[in-house]
Amino acid sequence: MSGFGDATAVKQVGEGRYEIVLDGGYAIGEALNGGYLMAVMARAAVDASPHAHPISTAANFHRVTKAGPAEVVVESRKAGRTAAASLVSLVQDGRSVVDALITTGTLDAAAEPDWAGEGPPAMPPLEECTDFRPPSGGGFADQVDMRFDRSTMGWLDGRPSGRPEVRGWFRHHGDEPLDAYSLALAVDALPPVVLNLDAQGWAPTVELTWHMRAVPAQGWLAVHGTGRLLADGWFDEEVEVWDSADRLVAQSRQIARVPRTRG
Amino acid sequence: MSGFGDATAVKQVGEGRYEIVLDGGYAIGEALNGGYLMAVMARAAVDASPHAHPISTAANFHRVTKAGPAEVVVESRKAGRTAAASLVSLVQDGRSVVDALITTGTLDAAAEPDWAGEGPPAMPPLEECTDFRPPSGGGFADQVDMRFDRSTMGWLDGRPSGRPEVRGWFRHHGDEPLDAYSLALAVDALPPVVLNLDAQGWAPTVELTWHMRAVPAQGWLAVHGTGRLLADGWFDEEVEVWDSADRLVAQSRQIARVPRTRG
Repeated sequence: MSGFGDATAVKQVGEGRYEIVLDGGYAIGEALNGGYLMAVMARAAVDASPHAHPISTAANFHRVTKAGPAEVVVESRKAGRTAAASLVSLVQDGRSVVDALITTGTLDAAAEPDWAGEGPPAMPPLEECTDFRPPSGGGFADQVDMRFDRSTMGWLDGRPSGRPEVRGWFRHHGDEPLDAYSLALAVDALPPVVLNLDAQGWAPTVELTWHMRAVPAQGWLAVHGTGRLLADGWFDEEVEVWDSADRLVAQSRQIARVPRTRG
Repeated sequence: MSGFGDATAVKQVGEGRYEIVLDGGYAIGEALNGGYLMAVMARAAVDASPHAHPISTAANFHRVTKAGPAEVVVESRKAGRTAAASLVSLVQDGRSVVDALITTGTLDAAAEPDWAGEGPPAMPPLEECTDFRPPSGGGFADQVDMRFDRSTMGWLDGRPSGRPEVRGWFRHHGDEPLDAYSLALAVDALPPVVLNLDAQGWAPTVELTWHMRAVPAQGWLAVHGTGRLLADGWFDEEVEVWDSADRLVAQSRQIARVPRTRG
């Protein structure tokens, strides 16, 4: 088992060009997890920029991405003193599989919020949570250690809660240290919240935007996913990620096609 | 005064290439409003796609955009049956001023939500609202008719509420019909919510993602902006837009640099 750092390491092969062998350990079924792909793309974007952190990532997922060789192409669109913007494409088999607009900047790990809204969600302690592994298989659950709040996992037993909400604890397996790229993984690690609306099957993400809000403290992350509207074949999912110091470290929204519902 | 339809009309000059003279009527101070620019880019993206609506727009704002000639370049990244993705660049004076990933699709105007969360915000009636015009001038307030909930506008009188929240009613001046592109304008039409945290001055948007969730009914839109965290020079702002039939028609999040605070 390679660690998350190794699995996301990109090798520069030219100006704004990087190579990587994508790690099947981050697949759910055959498809690599979108958070893993965003982590890889963010590492390339940060490497090509003068800043330390992926502040904003807006990704469009075009095609299923598989384990194996891929290229990351980073095109600088603006290099600013506070923030730098780039267009980043993940290319596999000669086609762009994911495009992302990534803005880098440098956050101060010691910064205290000037203003913060509601705090982290109430979460049951780890030992009361379930470590469900997706039936579709793949290595994801060997890489990412997640413990889910059972009250949000009723869909597992055919008793969906009727509310599009899933909560859980997150860390890398083996307690590998968290970094900025871990947050990309965390915002796309939950089962789709619409499973609690009795949706069935795969929910392909079309667009996901996430923002890094703080440098995470080490320890378990609390990951809280909710949704707002399921209509006309589309649903949104918002994820907030909190670190062990109860700080909001990442927030995301994705829009996805809805799997079929039992109706 | 040109109408919104005229002000956003793009003229095709080649495959995926469009020209427009950007309308100074949508400036706040010297800078054109970001929502207006997203509306222009979405019109080009939809024109170049087989679908009718801009479902998802993720935009990076690189530079101040001014009234006058500009070009919109649409590069198709995936043409799917349900959704099509493109990279759209707004170019002025030979430089990209805004880049956006835009996904188009076709929403059914008659679709009823399968599931919807909390309803629209409680808003005071129009006649109790204030039609504040930004002191920085420019034509925006002549194009867009907004009536703000006074309880969220305390910052105007030096009494910021302490909560990053602004609510208001929105329509085009002259009650020009609403369309999908009106929603792009609506999600970026509010004064920055951080003004209620005693922030001063201009708050440049770095990234804004918005999703069109339904075809809007005609009439006033209710626009509700909130924020989650102001830290380390960055703040987020979420906007929900509701139509006159009380349906969620658009949702957005932006991340922006914070203007200076009085502290």
